[in-house]
Amino acid sequence: MIPLKNDTFLRAALRQPTEYTPIWIMRQAGRYLPEYNATRKRAGSFLGLAKNPEYACEVTLQPLERFDLDASIIFSDILTVPDAMGLGLYFAEGEGPKFERPLQTEAAIKALPDADMNDLKYVFDALTLTRKGINGKVPLIGFSGSPYTLACYMIEGGGSDDFRRVKTLMYREPALLHHILEKNTQAVIAYLNAQIDAGAQAVMVFDTWGGSLSASAYEEFSLAYVTRIFAGLKRENEGRVVPRIFFTKGGGLWLERMAGCGADALGTDWTIDIGEAKRRVGHRVALQGNLDPSVLFGKPERVEAEAGKVLTSFAHDGQRDGHIFNLGHGISQFTDPANVQALVDVVHRSTRR
Amino acid sequence: MIPLKNDTFLRAALRQPTEYTPIWIMRQAGRYLPEYNATRKRAGSFLGLAKNPEYACEVTLQPLERFDLDASIIFSDILTVPDAMGLGLYFAEGEGPKFERPLQTEAAIKALPDADMNDLKYVFDALTLTRKGINGKVPLIGFSGSPYTLACYMIEGGGSDDFRRVKTLMYREPALLHHILEKNTQAVIAYLNAQIDAGAQAVMVFDTWGGSLSASAYEEFSLAYVTRIFAGLKRENEGRVVPRIFFTKGGGLWLERMAGCGADALGTDWTIDIGEAKRRVGHRVALQGNLDPSVLFGKPERVEAEAGKVLTSFAHDGQRDGHIFNLGHGISQFTDPANVQALVDVVHRSTRR
Repeated sequence: MIPLKNDTFLRAALRQPTEYTPIWIMRQAGRYLPEYNATRKRAGSFLGLAKNPEYACEVTLQPLERFDLDASIIFSDILTVPDAMGLGLYFAEGEGPKFERPLQTEAAIKALPDADMNDLKYVFDALTLTRKGINGKVPLIGFSGSPYTLACYMIEGGGSDDFRRVKTLMYREPALLHHILEKNTQAVIAYLNAQIDAGAQAVMVFDTWGGSLSASAYEEFSLAYVTRIFAGLKRENEGRVVPRIFFTKGGGLWLERMAGCGADALGTDWTIDIGEAKRRVGHRVALQGNLDPSVLFGKPERVEAEAGKVLTSFAHDGQRDGHIFNLGHGISQFTDPANVQALVDVVHRSTRR
Repeated sequence: MIPLKNDTFLRAALRQPTEYTPIWIMRQAGRYLPEYNATRKRAGSFLGLAKNPEYACEVTLQPLERFDLDASIIFSDILTVPDAMGLGLYFAEGEGPKFERPLQTEAAIKALPDADMNDLKYVFDALTLTRKGINGKVPLIGFSGSPYTLACYMIEGGGSDDFRRVKTLMYREPALLHHILEKNTQAVIAYLNAQIDAGAQAVMVFDTWGGSLSASAYEEFSLAYVTRIFAGLKRENEGRVVPRIFFTKGGGLWLERMAGCGADALGTDWTIDIGEAKRRVGHRVALQGNLDPSVLFGKPERVEAEAGKVLTSFAHDGQRDGHIFNLGHGISQFTDPANVQALVDVVHRSTRR
């Protein structure tokens, strides 16, 4: 086993002391990088890239070559699990992810098979290959969509402005929605444990659409299942704790409740002042975030100033530990990589203890 | 002047005692009503409807015929002000509002003219006509988009997933964005005061996109301007206070700060538990909301149960005054009007003091 040279991210996720505030960036391997676009072109498509372990490894490593990031995240998609249930994930050009066979009848819901982990071998292979490629430089994060977010796509068949189908099910036939969520939960537990076995040193659950729910529906249809996922995950691997991160976009109102779900760290989007988030969760969890990705459309000096606001707010109590710097959402394809460089530099430079 | 028979809504907005909790519904004159669709067909288009005072009056009155609502809101659009600045509002079929001449250069921004209130006469005429048509049954609400929300559409040229243009301006050339916001603020003050003169008995500012901002950007680019609007509005007309309502979709995290903006009532979307909202704002403002519009896709008994949760949460301290029941966002075109009936009935029936 290759020793890990930089474990700053893993320690920060567990609220342990670090020499500086670590940073990684959601969607850090992505279209804002010319080298990513070159690989994607060779792969032919997004899924051709994501489902090929060599390509996935290649693009996962790319941002580490350019930037002094403190973590890597496997290049994959949040919707691999329903794809492995046979729903047929595809990407229409210029649109988000879609499913060929969405769950739009009671019969389809009741016939939903378990996810076949053999169909997800490409993810596990990519993790193992990438761990080798990283060569101990930084930790590698594995991830999945949350049961509710998966259900949104599975039922709507794609993205949605109003989530009319999934919410109609929620308010007309909640037992059917719970049936899907139960299946998703079991699958995500198996999936993330297999990712840990394959080399993931931390895991993250992305609840992209949980923020579209009412407070009570969020607890019943999203948070309850995420709590069960974390309870079902391996706590240690390779002699180290495997930290868990949970991120609900638009979940800032519910942080106190999220802090009890078994995650070590909570991701926060940019709508909450991170100092306020810290006051609210206290010492229960670390926090990851939360610069508005749009700040990276500004000039480098503005990027530095806005990153400084986040850092200062987090450290209002004189304590910088327990903070993983990140954006509040995935980096935009229209970002100038030079601004990412400026961001990484300012976070490291200004937080050195 | 026709005396007002039901002023429950006006009193609730000012946190005065009422005999029951009043209810109205955002976008209550809309596509879920067959009679609305019939009028719209005659008008030929959305703007043909909104810009014709007779048609606008007709559809404003329609939901009052069907349901025992406690307020009416003039049928109009939040984007009338930039249209009166010459940006050319239009609606592409099946899409949201767009502007023919968005502000995408510094020259265009600096050349932005003041809104011509003569170009908004159709709104004032519709208000005056509708006041007569309502005949004192319930109060009539006037409204506008917030300066920031207007700016989003003015700069993007339409809706946006990421608000890349407006945020690029915010983080690269904030003075130019402030220039637009200043213009919008002056225009909205003149516009809402003229609406009050024309017959609006309450006014509401819709900040549809403020929730896409960081906490600090929200204060600087949205809330500061809304505060100036309320400071610039007439406080009384026809011998009564004219209540102001402010609604930021996704603004639940910032309620304490919003409570100081000069609004009498704050609108809240469904992501916040309304009892928690009440604890946070204390006695400073009334609250309007906050049922998830998707609940109306459920069966009537589920609608009643979910409305009951909102009412119970608000009344956790034994006090029902200061609550205006509403949805947390506009009603969906796919709603069964029978569920609106069930909702209005349960709110009235179960809150009778």
